[in-house]
Amino acid sequence: MSVNSKLYEGKAKILYTTEDPEILLADYKDDATAFNAQKRGSIIGKGNINCTISSKLFEQLEARGIKTHFIDSPAPNQMRVKAVKILPLEVVVRNIAAGSLCQQTGLPLGTILKQPLVEFYYKNDALGDPLLTRDRLYLLELATPEQVETITHLALQINEFLRDFWQRCRITLVDFKLEFGVDSHQQVLLADEISPDTCRLWDSAEADANRRVMDKDRFRKDLGNIEDAYQEVLQRVLQAVGSEN
Amino acid sequence: MSVNSKLYEGKAKILYTTEDPEILLADYKDDATAFNAQKRGSIIGKGNINCTISSKLFEQLEARGIKTHFIDSPAPNQMRVKAVKILPLEVVVRNIAAGSLCQQTGLPLGTILKQPLVEFYYKNDALGDPLLTRDRLYLLELATPEQVETITHLALQINEFLRDFWQRCRITLVDFKLEFGVDSHQQVLLADEISPDTCRLWDSAEADANRRVMDKDRFRKDLGNIEDAYQEVLQRVLQAVGSEN
Ligand SMILES: Nc1ncnc2c1ncn2[C@@H]1O[C@H](COP(=O)(O)OP(=O)(O)OP(=O)(O)O)[C@@H](O)[C@H]1O
Ligand SMILES: Nc1ncnc2c1ncn2[C@@H]1O[C@H](COP(=O)(O)OP(=O)(O)OP(=O)(O)O)[C@@H](O)[C@H]1O
Ligand SMILES: [Mg+2]
Ligand SMILES: [Mg+2]
Repeated sequence: MSVNSKLYEGKAKILYTTEDPEILLADYKDDATAFNAQKRGSIIGKGNINCTISSKLFEQLEARGIKTHFIDSPAPNQMRVKAVKILPLEVVVRNIAAGSLCQQTGLPLGTILKQPLVEFYYKNDALGDPLLTRDRLYLLELATPEQVETITHLALQINEFLRDFWQRCRITLVDFKLEFGVDSHQQVLLADEISPDTCRLWDSAEADANRRVMDKDRFRKDLGNIEDAYQEVLQRVLQAVGSEN
Repeated sequence: MSVNSKLYEGKAKILYTTEDPEILLADYKDDATAFNAQKRGSIIGKGNINCTISSKLFEQLEARGIKTHFIDSPAPNQMRVKAVKILPLEVVVRNIAAGSLCQQTGLPLGTILKQPLVEFYYKNDALGDPLLTRDRLYLLELATPEQVETITHLALQINEFLRDFWQRCRITLVDFKLEFGVDSHQQVLLADEISPDTCRLWDSAEADANRRVMDKDRFRKDLGNIEDAYQEVLQRVLQAVGSEN
């Protein structure tokens, strides 16, 4: 593998090798996809916005003792990260019912869950990222019971922090998707990104009837003004982070 | 509710009230449906066959201490059963990968599972009977943790018996669906039916390459000779039961 060569191009990011085999450069793109890439488009400025928001959130999580892949951000749309072996799991934490949870359970959109729900999906585009029971996860040997326990604990801790953080941005955290990876020491790290692409974010200022969606659902559901919403989320994040220092 | 009035007509059976409010009469129909009733047809003789097979299996299970709703069978297509409140769960036990397990996990059809898998699906036609995680089952309050524990234990016991029974019929039990109900004393009983409509049954005599399906998959997949397969399953069941007495 040569230095600075493209390691992998995903739907939202390109990963490049660096001089250090333990470090990768993630280049965040403006490309947007939904419904397992059946819907494709572009959100101008998204690469910069998502990379910046992710960087700030990873920094905040690290400051609270949560190990992430984040190293630094050499440019607004670039992040240097620790190379990990990504576990083939999409770990979803839900505070309020939305999306596939509503479709598959009949719970009305917006139902507040009594306690956060941590769900595992099989990160497998060909199969459409199906929901996993614990038994199926172990049957497919996607992670060890210890890893599942660690991840569940981390996911709940991250949720506690993020709910509070987004609330300070006057944003309600509905749900979000995390990916975890294993580093060369077999340590589980939070990887990938945390951004309006991977969180459902509702403007807390608006009542439920006027719900203002500030995340990728604007793209999924053709709600318009996507760039504005992403920009506003970024501004609120920068303000919340700035007012801390 | 008047006596002998139709209480409920399902896709495969009609339930009638009787003079005793604790007893229902289930009338097994020849109607066949698949894919959440999108595919419809009829299998001549199915009502008699499924009712007779179910009756024999319930008798055998009762003899082994497993409580079922079965009382007796006054006619080949009729079964008197204890009225229960059916829990809205389809409990699936799998010994070999097939059907939605293959579609959702990528496991090849026919993969032998190291241990039986007990899965819960939400019995809800409008939602398409989706797979449930434990968390979703409790979130929807579909059963109590005690009921889930009881049902899991019963399902595995029933699987042990059925695997052995079908093996004596020279049939491989791939998977099957159970329904449980709660009686007036809050006791969990095995209810509904156990038949070629609700089990995947493969002729043990045939090698995998020539797999001979002897269950409703012949209808789902238009494999033909459905009536013959159901008839042969019945004959083998009667032989297995007869050779015991
Ligand atoms: N620290 C890391 N080390 C290695 N891979 C990572 C790391 N962080 C994220 N990745 C992976 O980078 C890839 C590119 O990200 P992107 O969001 O574009 O992918 P995706 O299209 O959403 O998902 P995928 O292509 O994997 O289905 C993803 O497969 C992601 O799991
Ligand atoms: N002992 C019992 N007491 C009450 N209801 C029962 C009992 N045994 C089975 N049932 C119910 O009888 C109904 C009719 O059976 P059938 O197999 O025709 O229904 P189905 O069309 O498969 O399912 P459904 O209509 O419930 O979606 C089912 O709802 C089943 O759960
Ligand atoms: Mg991604
Ligand atoms: Mg039925």
